[in-house]
Amino acid sequence: MTARNISQFWKWGRKIICVGRNYADHAKELKNAIPTEPVLFLKPPSAYVREGSPILVPPYTGNLHHEVELGVVIGKGGTAIPQAAAMEHVAGYALCLDMTARDIQDECKSRGLPWTLAKAFNTSCPVSDFIPKERIPDPANVQLWLKVNEQLRQSGSTSQMIFSIPYLISYISDFITLEEGDLILTGTPKGVSAVQEHDELQAGIQDVVTMSFRVDRQD
Amino acid sequence: MTARNISQFWKWGRKIICVGRNYADHAKELKNAIPTEPVLFLKPPSAYVREGSPILVPPYTGNLHHEVELGVVIGKGGTAIPQAAAMEHVAGYALCLDMTARDIQDECKSRGLPWTLAKAFNTSCPVSDFIPKERIPDPANVQLWLKVNEQLRQSGSTSQMIFSIPYLISYISDFITLEEGDLILTGTPKGVSAVQEHDELQAGIQDVVTMSFRVDRQD
Ligand SMILES: [Mg+2]
Ligand SMILES: [Mg+2]
Ligand SMILES: [Mg+2]
Repeated sequence: MTARNISQFWKWGRKIICVGRNYADHAKELKNAIPTEPVLFLKPPSAYVREGSPILVPPYTGNLHHEVELGVVIGKGGTAIPQAAAMEHVAGYALCLDMTARDIQDECKSRGLPWTLAKAFNTSCPVSDFIPKERIPDPANVQLWLKVNEQLRQSGSTSQMIFSIPYLISYISDFITLEEGDLILTGTPKGVSAVQEHDELQAGIQDVVTMSFRVDRQD
Repeated sequence: MTARNISQFWKWGRKIICVGRNYADHAKELKNAIPTEPVLFLKPPSAYVREGSPILVPPYTGNLHHEVELGVVIGKGGTAIPQAAAMEHVAGYALCLDMTARDIQDECKSRGLPWTLAKAFNTSCPVSDFIPKERIPDPANVQLWLKVNEQLRQSGSTSQMIFSIPYLISYISDFITLEEGDLILTGTPKGVSAVQEHDELQAGIQDVVTMSFRVDRQD
């Protein structure tokens, strides 16, 4: 293995920690209560997919949803990181999709089961190129958008987040040590909807990055 | 980073996939139905802890349980691995504990939330030395045991597993690609119970390995 290059964190990073219901308008559209503490779940690094490869629909879902999210890439690990020091641990960002088998997630929720089948499958974490920290001077005020076949489905500002990036880094690192190359997905604004085989997804962070992915069926 | 050494998989392996309720007698003791397909959840690699370091009780739980489990270490990655070829992907084993904040898990289950706080915290995955495959010729017939302060709490044979190791490898790899260094925790027999600060845990696989861990409070 060659030296670690943070701009290819998806090749060697060891965890993906996702925050659910971090935008009030999205919590409402799924009829969830506004959380009083972050809802956290995990994806494995095998979930990463990069432009040029398709997002695959698992055969067991009939309702695969897109969730466009700002990803935070950890540059310096730590445990029990204070909020005031949290941004020193950030190397940069990535635009991410939290692909979600919504029908399976609903079933897991009603049966009290973990969300693994709904959230952790191969290609459930499409990621953009790495975005160095300097290119997003104010991560609490960027515009995320997502289109399916040219139609705008999601558009929202990270200013609508319930829990801020420093809060999340501090909260998570109290019980899960953060390591270089880890990725935190910070939640999605409203407008999630289903995708089908052959759809084209485009997503962006205004003035910073765009990416596109084709949806295919898993054989 | 030096070359990967499978006997130290915990230093570089990228995922831990855990199977819940894989022994009927344990499913019953927690009043869960016998599953018709595997219940899967994830721990991050930051959950690993090795002998010599303590198991830490997270401050938010009042009911931390031990679950002794046979861990399967993947040597050769793969996707959609057939059951008949599954054992070729196994490099060896490790004795593992799936430390579980049972009160938090119960709350997550009743609220339809992911199990992250209950299962993914630092030191939630104590692991023994790596056990080369040859040392366990029949992984479907080994005896696992766990003592707390010299008292036997868990004792069971992997012959009681509902889903076999080849079945689990095949089932998981259908939607989560397995990679070298991944660990699969295969579930726990009955006898789970709470541990307290200053307890001494000892666990073993009969005739193969033993390990011991002290329980401490997280500061
Ligand atoms: Mg999400
Ligand atoms: Mg989970
Ligand atoms: Mg377990």
